[in-house]
Order: sequence, then structure tokens, then C-alpha cells
Amino acid sequence: MKLVTFRYQNTISIGLVDGGRVLDLAPLADRLGGSLKEMIRKGVLSDLVGFDTSSLNSLSLDEIEFLPVIPDAGKILCVGINYTTHVKETGRDMPMHPMIFTRFADSQAGHLTPIIRPFVSHKLDFEGELAVVIGKTARHVKAENALEYVAGYSCYNDGSVRDYQKHTIQFIPGKNFPNTGGFGPWLVTSDEIPDPQALHLTTRLNGDVMQDTDTSDMIFGVAELIEYCSTFTELAPGDVIVSGTTGGVGAFREPPVWMKPGDSIEIAISGIGTLRNTIADEA
Amino acid sequence: MKLVTFRYQNTISIGLVDGGRVLDLAPLADRLGGSLKEMIRKGVLSDLVGFDTSSLNSLSLDEIEFLPVIPDAGKILCVGINYTTHVKETGRDMPMHPMIFTRFADSQAGHLTPIIRPFVSHKLDFEGELAVVIGKTARHVKAENALEYVAGYSCYNDGSVRDYQKHTIQFIPGKNFPNTGGFGPWLVTSDEIPDPQALHLTTRLNGDVMQDTDTSDMIFGVAELIEYCSTFTELAPGDVIVSGTTGGVGAFREPPVWMKPGDSIEIAISGIGTLRNTIADEA
Repeated sequence: MKLVTFRYQNTISIGLVDGGRVLDLAPLADRLGGSLKEMIRKGVLSDLVGFDTSSLNSLSLDEIEFLPVIPDAGKILCVGINYTTHVKETGRDMPMHPMIFTRFADSQAGHLTPIIRPFVSHKLDFEGELAVVIGKTARHVKAENALEYVAGYSCYNDGSVRDYQKHTIQFIPGKNFPNTGGFGPWLVTSDEIPDPQALHLTTRLNGDVMQDTDTSDMIFGVAELIEYCSTFTELAPGDVIVSGTTGGVGAFREPPVWMKPGDSIEIAISGIGTLRNTIADEA
Repeated sequence: MKLVTFRYQNTISIGLVDGGRVLDLAPLADRLGGSLKEMIRKGVLSDLVGFDTSSLNSLSLDEIEFLPVIPDAGKILCVGINYTTHVKETGRDMPMHPMIFTRFADSQAGHLTPIIRPFVSHKLDFEGELAVVIGKTARHVKAENALEYVAGYSCYNDGSVRDYQKHTIQFIPGKNFPNTGGFGPWLVTSDEIPDPQALHLTTRLNGDVMQDTDTSDMIFGVAELIEYCSTFTELAPGDVIVSGTTGGVGAFREPPVWMKPGDSIEIAISGIGTLRNTIADEA
């Protein structure tokens, strides 16, 4: 099942993606919840299986404005340096623990909406990643059963302003510029992805493959990331773990490659879909 | 003016502190807002000056449960290594930019409520800091007029689980354990603190002075921190900047000093008050 957060005629709604169309769940908001986060919290996603959708308004995917999958995510925990290929590229040692930093929810951008290059820096880079959306409250969870806490998966572009990221050893400034983190196009529920370490991820800039990996190359898999994060913070429904990127980012190319206005950046993950954004300058 | 977020008889409310008593603003919640964040956003704090409070319920400070000043802060931006004394103690170079990391709101603890030592680590340390609460939306603000964006100030104990903080170069895990960040006792509105760099801050562990500094020793002052943070993210009313700590933390003592159950930790700032917490073990 694929669920999308979208805006249509000035109203934010949740939709069930069905081929090239989306069934607007707005009439059911009282019962299901008015946001994807709320629907996850209420545990109603599974109620939608086999649901009679004949009375729902069907929209074309072309006519909706995609919003970030969870626009109001409470906690967005990102993982640095989590693929062996990327570790080699950065020259760092193999990590003993996941490297965790955070994004604020307003740093995100929906599928097909612009990723914004700030005027204070043009060193805007891409990072194609698998996003994990938490399905239920998780604290002190063990890896063995951590996948039970996943509502679903999506694509994420952990867009980074590299000079601000490197101002100090803390990444936060470079990872939180508004509208730099692509998140979409939709949530694929976890029943459709039995093994998040068996996916293929490709990042394309203007059609050229920049990153290409199997998620089996992750150093800390999704289950281990949930275990680690739930040790120091309580994860809640709708929280997001962005599981890290692989080799090939623009900053480590010779010469470096920065995204510029008009560029098209795509993150494609098998079994999920393709997140596509274009770059625009800050107004 | 001093404003406190508190719980009394299972109801969360905002109070005006008047000596040893607190005037419960609950009857005015419809007009003023139901949380301090909402009151700041609505710009009604100044309406309280000279307000007729004769009809308000007056409670003793002893009978309320203090909550974190802004329990629902959207963004909590913390600054590392921001006093010259602390830079020397850590052996780091003098920074060119503020070092920014984040806390989640649920990592906070109110005045007189326990700071929790987690069972996965006993390396629980204190950091006495000046907290700055943002008063209005701030983006691309210049330092010259940045203090206009401050609603008020409070004390903060940026409690840190040092081994988790040092798992990788990113501080997030060690800074986000639940109930480790003391925030209180109240908000002192900015009209009472014309110069946030002219305050005196003292941290006492079981009565012994552990940190003692003037805020004039900050490397990046409050105005510069607002300028820097507003460059990469939009600050909103009720957001918090925790402005960094000075020398004397437990981790750099020989031997190291860790907080343990039963300890009393106090952060006192001139013109604001004293934040006091005791340490308790995770249940």
C-alpha cells in the first residue's frame, strides 16, 4: 500500500496511491486521522486493506501537490557515513556506532517541489537515502524485533549545504536549510518490504547515475538503527530515521559537483518508487 | 516579569511569578493562549504588564509542579564550546563559527523535577547555560537588531551522557536522553535583561561551585547566535537557543565527576534565578 500526503485545492489530505491515480481519504479523516502521522499513531493503516474505495474521489497524480511524506515529523534522525563505500570515500574509519544528527521538519520538501539552493552558499549537495517511518512507540527496542516498529519506507534526499555542514564538527547547520531535504514520493507500508536490506538505490543528477548501491551495503541496518536510537530517545509514530548515504556524493568528486537551479535530482529505490526534485534559488 | 509553565491538580497552566507565589493565568487562556509558546506567538506578554490580577488564583510556588519553561519547544538549538574557558579545557581551537547541535523537547526536565541517569550509562554530566527564548519569527536577522527577537531568558542544564556524546563526532545521542536537560525555573522577559552578556552564571553540585563565569566570556554572544542560526533555519516564537557552557564540567575533571542519584545540581544566573534538580535513576 502506498500513501501520499498532498495538497489539492488548498486542502491538505492523505491519499491512497492506485497506479497513476490517488484516492483522496479526506472524507474518512474523522475516523482515520487528518495526517499520515495521526493515521500511523491510531494504527489504522491496516484497516485500509481491502477497503471499499468506490466512494472516494479519484485524482490524477499529475494534479496533486506532493508534500513531504510526514510534513510534521516530530523527530528526524539522520545517519552519517553508513555505507562502506561512503566511508572509504570520506577517508574515515569504520564506525563503531551509528553517527546520528537531526533535521527539522521544515527542512523537508515534497516530491516534484523545488529543493532550494540558499543564497548564502552554493555548495548544495545530494544524498540518496532510504527513509524509515516509525509505526509505534519504541524505547529500548532490540534489533531482533525492531522491524515490527516500522510503518513503512520512502526515499529521502538528505540535501546538504556542505560549507555550513563543515563550519564545525557538528553537521546541523548544513543539514537544516529550508526545503533541502526531499522526502517522497509516498510511504510504502512495511508489509510490502519484508527486508529493507534487500533494496537497490540509485541517485541520478540530470539523468546521470551518481550513486548506485544495494542497501545490504549499510554498516548499521535498519533494525540496528532503531535499536540504537531507541536507546537514547523514545521514537514515536511518524518519526523518521534517514538511514545514511552511499558513495558518489558531489562533494567528494574531482572537481566537486554542486546542484544548481534547473537541475533534476532523483532518488530511486526498488519497491518504493522515485523521488524527483528540481533545484531553484532562494527567492 | 517572570512566567512559569506548571502543573497543578493535573492541569497544565501558565503563571505569573510574584515573589514566592504564582498567579494562575488559566482563566485567561482563551484570550492569552494555553501555553507559553502560544502566548509568545500571539505577542501578549506585554499585555500582562500592569494587568489587574486581583481575580486570579494565587498559588504557593511550593504547591506547583514546575515543567520545562517551553515544554513543547519546536527547535532547541544548543551551542557547544562557546566560552573561552571551556575551549581551553577541551583543548580545542578557538571556533570560527558557533557549534550547533540540537535537543528534542522530550529531553527536558522542569525545575525541581528529577534529571534521570539512564541505565545504559552512568557518565551523566552537567552544563550550566543561559537559555534564550525566541519571541518572533526570525530569518536572516542581523546581530545589530537580533535582541529584538528575544522573548526572554532562563537557566538551562544541558545534561550530557558523555560516552554516548562521544560515540561518534556528532553529539546528538548524548544530548537527548529523556529528562536530562533542566530548563527553568521560569522565563524572565527580555525587558528585565537589557544585556544578556552582563550576567553571572554559577553551577553548584551538592553546594560546591563547579562552574562560575560571566556571560561576557561567551565567544559568540546571544545576538551573534541568533544571526547565525537564522541564516540556516527559521526561528519561531518559543524556539530555544541554549548558548553554551563554560569550564568546569565533570568530564574534564581529574578524576571525572559524574552526577549520581540523590545529587543536587543548581544553575544560578543573576537576574533570572536558580534552576535546581536532583538526580534519579531511570526506573
